[in-house]
Amino acid sequence: MTCSGEDRLIARYFRPLAKHPAAFGLMDDAAALTPPPGYDLVLKADAVVGGVHFFPDDPPGAVARKALRVNLSDLAAKGAAPQGFLLSLALPDGVGEDWLAAFSAGLAADVDEFACPLLGGDTVRSPGAAMISVAAVGALPHGTMVRRDGAQPGDRVFVTGTIGDAALGLRLRQGARWPLDARQRDHLLNRYLLPRPRVALHDAIRAHASGGMDVSDGLAGDFAKLCRASGVTALIDVARVPLSEAARAALDAEPSLMEPILTGGDDYEVLATVSDAKRDAFRHAAAAAGVAVTEIGTVLAGEGTPRFLLHGAPLKFARPAFSHF
Amino acid sequence: MTCSGEDRLIARYFRPLAKHPAAFGLMDDAAALTPPPGYDLVLKADAVVGGVHFFPDDPPGAVARKALRVNLSDLAAKGAAPQGFLLSLALPDGVGEDWLAAFSAGLAADVDEFACPLLGGDTVRSPGAAMISVAAVGALPHGTMVRRDGAQPGDRVFVTGTIGDAALGLRLRQGARWPLDARQRDHLLNRYLLPRPRVALHDAIRAHASGGMDVSDGLAGDFAKLCRASGVTALIDVARVPLSEAARAALDAEPSLMEPILTGGDDYEVLATVSDAKRDAFRHAAAAAGVAVTEIGTVLAGEGTPRFLLHGAPLKFARPAFSHF
Repeated sequence: MTCSGEDRLIARYFRPLAKHPAAFGLMDDAAALTPPPGYDLVLKADAVVGGVHFFPDDPPGAVARKALRVNLSDLAAKGAAPQGFLLSLALPDGVGEDWLAAFSAGLAADVDEFACPLLGGDTVRSPGAAMISVAAVGALPHGTMVRRDGAQPGDRVFVTGTIGDAALGLRLRQGARWPLDARQRDHLLNRYLLPRPRVALHDAIRAHASGGMDVSDGLAGDFAKLCRASGVTALIDVARVPLSEAARAALDAEPSLMEPILTGGDDYEVLATVSDAKRDAFRHAAAAAGVAVTEIGTVLAGEGTPRFLLHGAPLKFARPAFSHF
Repeated sequence: MTCSGEDRLIARYFRPLAKHPAAFGLMDDAAALTPPPGYDLVLKADAVVGGVHFFPDDPPGAVARKALRVNLSDLAAKGAAPQGFLLSLALPDGVGEDWLAAFSAGLAADVDEFACPLLGGDTVRSPGAAMISVAAVGALPHGTMVRRDGAQPGDRVFVTGTIGDAALGLRLRQGARWPLDARQRDHLLNRYLLPRPRVALHDAIRAHASGGMDVSDGLAGDFAKLCRASGVTALIDVARVPLSEAARAALDAEPSLMEPILTGGDDYEVLATVSDAKRDAFRHAAAAAGVAVTEIGTVLAGEGTPRFLLHGAPLKFARPAFSHF
């Protein structure tokens, strides 16, 4: 392409997403964000890579939305409202304008849905896989970020939505077969393809949670990290972990799926600990925000990996959490 | 590796770089940065990719520093002081702990040199090349970011350092041969390997420049962008463009190298326009900051690509700027 190719692509596909004065219409080299007075900015960067986090033939719009949403999920779990994001795109030679058009259209839908404008970024060539790196910026009143290390003995453990869908959806993509109807299959596949970050819950989390994080590497492993950071342990009642009808159907057919459900990752739900005194207020705030939350256990004093009890017996996991390394 | 591999790598190689309370020692899911009251945060993301921006056998410490420095160069050109950065690392299977140790040691040196702590990020597997994406955060008093669109007719055009070294260094890496001594060769090779962002100049730029940007895609193309954004044109006296002794020696041997010198990119110098009234103050401030600046031309009213005059005749460039697309 010509020397102006990069500028033309930015103008055509990305400028419409830069709906914030801080972005200068992507006409400058950097954004200048004016933080709300008295607020902290919450910063998070996460990348998705073709062949690792998504399939190269996934719809480009879904890839774009996933790249943004995995970051918005973190902001929500920390209690922060999205302010905008930076995007670094590394694209293989085979990627043409059709792909970019679909990618930016998907991203545009999320920019609107989550009121999270594109603030800047860059686009480069990749000799291998596509890599989409997002750095998301959120804001919250100074000193109020909900941290991993705030859980207290006696707190109740809550999760949003349902757990394990994406891990099962990935296994379906990889060829697993369970007795599911088409709607159930689609549900699991879509939950892998397109996370649903609980952005609407951020105020409720900040107002009521003692500790929180998003579930991205599996409920068991991520909750163990939260307990370790907080210097506590916990009991989780596995029977109360919220499952979708589709996940329930797969689990009924193959009970060993309980492990990937609890450890497989890609949930992008929020895990929060809430004191007994704030439990009802949290439930009401979540309902008002339109986000389902379920109480699944109790934080306990002491050290050690939280125990996941199924009908009174502790589960042992062969591989407690997803890790790239 | 085990499920705790990722956490162990972060603790060992990256936690020591997170020297800022906002980073929570990389023990949480996000950073919470408290902006200085009355300041804007300047945000910039740029990625470097193995086989595109660096050679796969480049020293890992230099790769790390380049990934950070290309972003710090933008902050400096905008007049912002570094506050910290997020790092997204996608690493091929072949990358082991030796590579990571050298990578983080290089990065640690720059964290100290530029007072720019690591605030967060993530590390994932790449099925292809290594990709390092940095999102850098700078700060400056509200509304004072130096923009591309501020150049005024009559302003003087300044650049820092020397131009064209990195473009020639890349050509040496690719097999070009010119009559240079070892020191001259090393100078050019090092300028490609390790940019020298003009971070120390950020206050002088903010105080005195009407417009500015960093030179990353070639002086000719980048300055044309600045002129277009500002609605002006310019005359550049090519004989005044600062060249290193090594670049001068290569150019003397092969006069056609003037084009890659002016258009080849990877300079990471600052290009600034300064009003006649502020010219001396800018020169003094730059000298006080220890950064060489050279006046190379004048901004003119009117439209059109700035003219680069060599002994009175305009240069024509076959490929005015580097572009990935």
